[in-house]
Amino acid sequence: MSEGPNQEPLHDVAHIGHAELLTPKAEDSLRFFVDVLGMEVEATEGQSVFLRGWGDYQRYSLKLTEAPQAGLGHLALRTWSADALRRRAEAIEATGLGGGWIDGDLGHGPAYRFTDPDGHAMELYWETERYSPPDHLKPSLKNQPQRYTGRGAAIKRLDHVNVLAADVRANRDFAEQQLGFRLYERIQLDDGSESGAWLSLSIAAHELIYVRDAYGARGRLHHLAFWVDTREEVLRAADLFLDSGIEIEAAPSKHAVAQGFFLYGFEPGGNRIEVTTGGYLVYDPDPEPTVWNELERAKGQAWGVKTVESFHTYGTPVIEEQPA
Amino acid sequence: MSEGPNQEPLHDVAHIGHAELLTPKAEDSLRFFVDVLGMEVEATEGQSVFLRGWGDYQRYSLKLTEAPQAGLGHLALRTWSADALRRRAEAIEATGLGGGWIDGDLGHGPAYRFTDPDGHAMELYWETERYSPPDHLKPSLKNQPQRYTGRGAAIKRLDHVNVLAADVRANRDFAEQQLGFRLYERIQLDDGSESGAWLSLSIAAHELIYVRDAYGARGRLHHLAFWVDTREEVLRAADLFLDSGIEIEAAPSKHAVAQGFFLYGFEPGGNRIEVTTGGYLVYDPDPEPTVWNELERAKGQAWGVKTVESFHTYGTPVIEEQPA
Amino acid sequence: MSEGPNQEPLHDVAHIGHAELLTPKAEDSLRFFVDVLGMEVEATEGQSVFLRGWGDYQRYSLKLTEAPQAGLGHLALRTWSADALRRRAEAIEATGLGGGWIDGDLGHGPAYRFTDPDGHAMELYWETERYSPPDHLKPSLKNQPQRYTGRGAAIKRLDHVNVLAADVRANRDFAEQQLGFRLYERIQLDDGSESGAWLSLSIAAHELIYVRDAYGARGRLHHLAFWVDTREEVLRAADLFLDSGIEIEAAPSKHAVAQGFFLYGFEPGGNRIEVTTGGYLVYDPDPEPTVWNELERAKGQAWGVKTVESFHTYGTPVIEEQPA
Amino acid sequence: MSEGPNQEPLHDVAHIGHAELLTPKAEDSLRFFVDVLGMEVEATEGQSVFLRGWGDYQRYSLKLTEAPQAGLGHLALRTWSADALRRRAEAIEATGLGGGWIDGDLGHGPAYRFTDPDGHAMELYWETERYSPPDHLKPSLKNQPQRYTGRGAAIKRLDHVNVLAADVRANRDFAEQQLGFRLYERIQLDDGSESGAWLSLSIAAHELIYVRDAYGARGRLHHLAFWVDTREEVLRAADLFLDSGIEIEAAPSKHAVAQGFFLYGFEPGGNRIEVTTGGYLVYDPDPEPTVWNELERAKGQAWGVKTVESFHTYGTPVIEEQPA
Repeated sequence: MSEGPNQEPLHDVAHIGHAELLTPKAEDSLRFFVDVLGMEVEATEGQSVFLRGWGDYQRYSLKLTEAPQAGLGHLALRTWSADALRRRAEAIEATGLGGGWIDGDLGHGPAYRFTDPDGHAMELYWETERYSPPDHLKPSLKNQPQRYTGRGAAIKRLDHVNVLAADVRANRDFAEQQLGFRLYERIQLDDGSESGAWLSLSIAAHELIYVRDAYGARGRLHHLAFWVDTREEVLRAADLFLDSGIEIEAAPSKHAVAQGFFLYGFEPGGNRIEVTTGGYLVYDPDPEPTVWNELERAKGQAWGVKTVESFHTYGTPVIEEQPA
Repeated sequence: MSEGPNQEPLHDVAHIGHAELLTPKAEDSLRFFVDVLGMEVEATEGQSVFLRGWGDYQRYSLKLTEAPQAGLGHLALRTWSADALRRRAEAIEATGLGGGWIDGDLGHGPAYRFTDPDGHAMELYWETERYSPPDHLKPSLKNQPQRYTGRGAAIKRLDHVNVLAADVRANRDFAEQQLGFRLYERIQLDDGSESGAWLSLSIAAHELIYVRDAYGARGRLHHLAFWVDTREEVLRAADLFLDSGIEIEAAPSKHAVAQGFFLYGFEPGGNRIEVTTGGYLVYDPDPEPTVWNELERAKGQAWGVKTVESFHTYGTPVIEEQPA
Repeated sequence: MSEGPNQEPLHDVAHIGHAELLTPKAEDSLRFFVDVLGMEVEATEGQSVFLRGWGDYQRYSLKLTEAPQAGLGHLALRTWSADALRRRAEAIEATGLGGGWIDGDLGHGPAYRFTDPDGHAMELYWETERYSPPDHLKPSLKNQPQRYTGRGAAIKRLDHVNVLAADVRANRDFAEQQLGFRLYERIQLDDGSESGAWLSLSIAAHELIYVRDAYGARGRLHHLAFWVDTREEVLRAADLFLDSGIEIEAAPSKHAVAQGFFLYGFEPGGNRIEVTTGGYLVYDPDPEPTVWNELERAKGQAWGVKTVESFHTYGTPVIEEQPA
Repeated sequence: MSEGPNQEPLHDVAHIGHAELLTPKAEDSLRFFVDVLGMEVEATEGQSVFLRGWGDYQRYSLKLTEAPQAGLGHLALRTWSADALRRRAEAIEATGLGGGWIDGDLGHGPAYRFTDPDGHAMELYWETERYSPPDHLKPSLKNQPQRYTGRGAAIKRLDHVNVLAADVRANRDFAEQQLGFRLYERIQLDDGSESGAWLSLSIAAHELIYVRDAYGARGRLHHLAFWVDTREEVLRAADLFLDSGIEIEAAPSKHAVAQGFFLYGFEPGGNRIEVTTGGYLVYDPDPEPTVWNELERAKGQAWGVKTVESFHTYGTPVIEEQPA
């Protein structure tokens, strides 16, 4: 019998609300997210365009911002309540990684800014605007926030974010202890160090992933992943990438870790983008994380596909020289 | 901006661990769950057989028990912690619906018994045995509890339970207040009464559903639903039902409420069984429940399929006469 | 052992090249075929727009023509060779149903016009123009005639045509004897008459279907069917129909006859349109046709879905009164 | 306008009826075809087991024969008629590759034996026994030869055969001229020689493929391909291969040539086996074959997956040393 440590789990942070993506090619990137991924432009403000999938309950899940370099602008996490927001802000303040309050941004209320130990900018917020579709995007089913247009890959919502970190373990600990993420899988190298950690705030197999930065750099992005409901839509997205001239880094297949079904490509700004579905749901409130060793990971993905080398090194901002 | 009531949500109950199903035709029912649904027999004890899907992390999710009449034996819910179990037991005890502690059952520890207001037998437990596969069922991927055999519909796990109730609203309130279920959708008749409520403990669109009993009877079961990962597997299950002589009540289509993709049939003991996938995930920690009215529900399922009459009346134990 | 009649099969007609569809609402119909079915406009001439699926090897498979009433303009069949065209023209001329030669139409050469016994206008032709895509529609794979745009249901090509006939048997005989269609399935009513015949020129389960006209009318169209490669695309098309306001007559399910996976709806001009995939391939050069009787057909579709009443009576041009 | 050469196409051979596969590990191979591919044993005779998919209209499509070495026993092709059989036998006799008549084999009548120029043993036959299922395999739909059991990958039928040849062009010419195969795609190397030819007797994209033997050997087999109706079933087959311990050579993806969706693995006897679906149908009676050059093929499969090296060299019987 597993009795568990009987530690009361932390339920203060609900989910990743949106990610801000930086692109040096704003127009081309926008065309990719609208025409190829099939997102809708919900608003434009300054150098940023706010984009949504047809299943997003908030106004947007992607803030696309023109910038000199590709990369992650920030990650915004929504809490379970106003009190939870206050609790988390205080706890993070105490770690020394806090950055203070901001008034909010388009579509959401006051937010507490901070960075993870690796330096990725993050925010916590509670108040939000739910999406209210214009007439041409009104859905037929009232439990759906927006009409299904079917344009491009027709992604439903932002699914998860994978960030690179110089020290995976330190960031994973922070995510668990300060934000209440739960660890479902991790990779432990033969030297005992951790090279990847799959974390979630819910029964979804992953919402935030930390992977070791091959350059030892800080604050970089590995990829943003957008959800579709079926594997057939991932296969279809590959046809769309192909005929839209989007470089495919990894053709559709099934991950061993977390068992997600994937397609990886690069948006014109240089950021890696995943179209994903599948995986598993973790109903176990007290699961023992799956630990993979080097030998096991060397087998490649679930059906034996070898991971392409760039997947282990490339991130944004791009570092031109070879990793050490 | 939605500021919400800022009520701290209850996170004490994690998920439905298993359901006990009663069958007057034990042997035929067993053959259905093993050969047609593709479950594994994990243990046998007395008049009960304990069955599992390939994705269940615990030893079993279905306890199939021989009994004079079809119906639901009990529902067992696993808590988030030992403390959460104690908290819930005390709270339910105070409602007068408590039934005291039992030592547990095969595969799990002490359980607190109670009934919902309608009289369905339920249990709460914390300690559990995780599944340890015998050699012939060891999986290739270590993040999977069991080998994928592919036999029959090859269901992955128990997904949700739909019970009939004389008073939906009273039971929904109990589930929300005492167990921490969250209400995602409901049907409100023109007379103001509630005829259906879709409840969940997680981001899954539903785990427990209450639907009005057309007979005003108490404690009956509408159906148990078993999960497969893809719509194609639901279509495939329909071919298997057809060629296995299992009566199909409703051919595969998409629900309007909760948007699940369904196939309904009857196991030989008379209980309605669903093979399901799809639906949506509710990341919103504070969603406004979708309310459907009679006119909207009269449109049928998502793509206009009219709901078959038996779906509104049939439950187990079976009541032979016509509903009032 | 089946020795067969050892009659040399006729191999003169290759396939249905295109169908001309009449619509009283030219603009709305065009929007449907372009936006919802995802076809491309290849040319416009007079009152007609020529449309293609991404997999059509010829310039178009649908000629959409404005007309006072909905219905079928004509069916054009391509032969296996110039000689085969001459042979068929002579043979049909001899039946008295011939209509003489025309110079051809956009995209194809000289054609021999005729009607089937029921009066549906048909043409035979050999010379054709293969599709040459403009730059924005050039495919990445050279064995594909056109880029996959993914717009709307993204149908690949015209698949089959179902026409109503006052006397199914007479038309089926004509199609077999004069055109070389092979009969794969048919429905025989208890009175011995034939109410449906599924015919093909190839291993595809059907290319031309005759179904009894419930009004005893002549020359009417039951539906045009457009192909997609997967069942998931049919399900997706249903979501698109729903959110585009296209009336769904029959939600996706699997036919018993020919086992095709279907979705039926009405284009704005009133013609019934199917999105289809699946079925089976008939490699047997000498198959015994499957004969269904009334009792068997009363069971509904493959998984028990009852056929909606309009499916048995509605055709275009529309007849307003009730059938006898 | 394409007027074509107006050569009357040859329609004498209908399709590949069955393939005989040789295995040095008869028992293990049989277990693979029954348990993993899901075929049924229809008969056993001498050192051979006759196996069928649920969609085969004849008694079997695979004859599995114990032999010292893996490889292809023979290919059997069914003609369109008894006359066609005689015509083809006479024509082949005249080429000097004929081998005379045999009385037939289990399930089919007299057959004319011959080899292709490369030395692969082939047969032509007309008379055949159609499948008559025992009670436990009777289907619910009368247009289906056998019940769908869903066991293992549940392949429907033998789909195509890929053989290695020292001189692809000579064998392709023979298949076109003597058997009436039509060439749909081919690979032409920079030196002008042909390294692959995709041939079909029907609108299916391929039934027989010749690929250059990297060793210059003769009579070897590249793979047998078995059909499933959906891509999801190919993905599912990959999970089954994985958890059944079947070595996966190439994980599911989409071919560039012929666009088939594939999974390749090795049956225990050493023969390469494909589970396949997809591709396209060639309705054009006079298509211009797609010609791929070396540069184009170097791009890998449709979505950029690089072809694994063994795919270019491995065949059965196995040659141990490295190719020149």
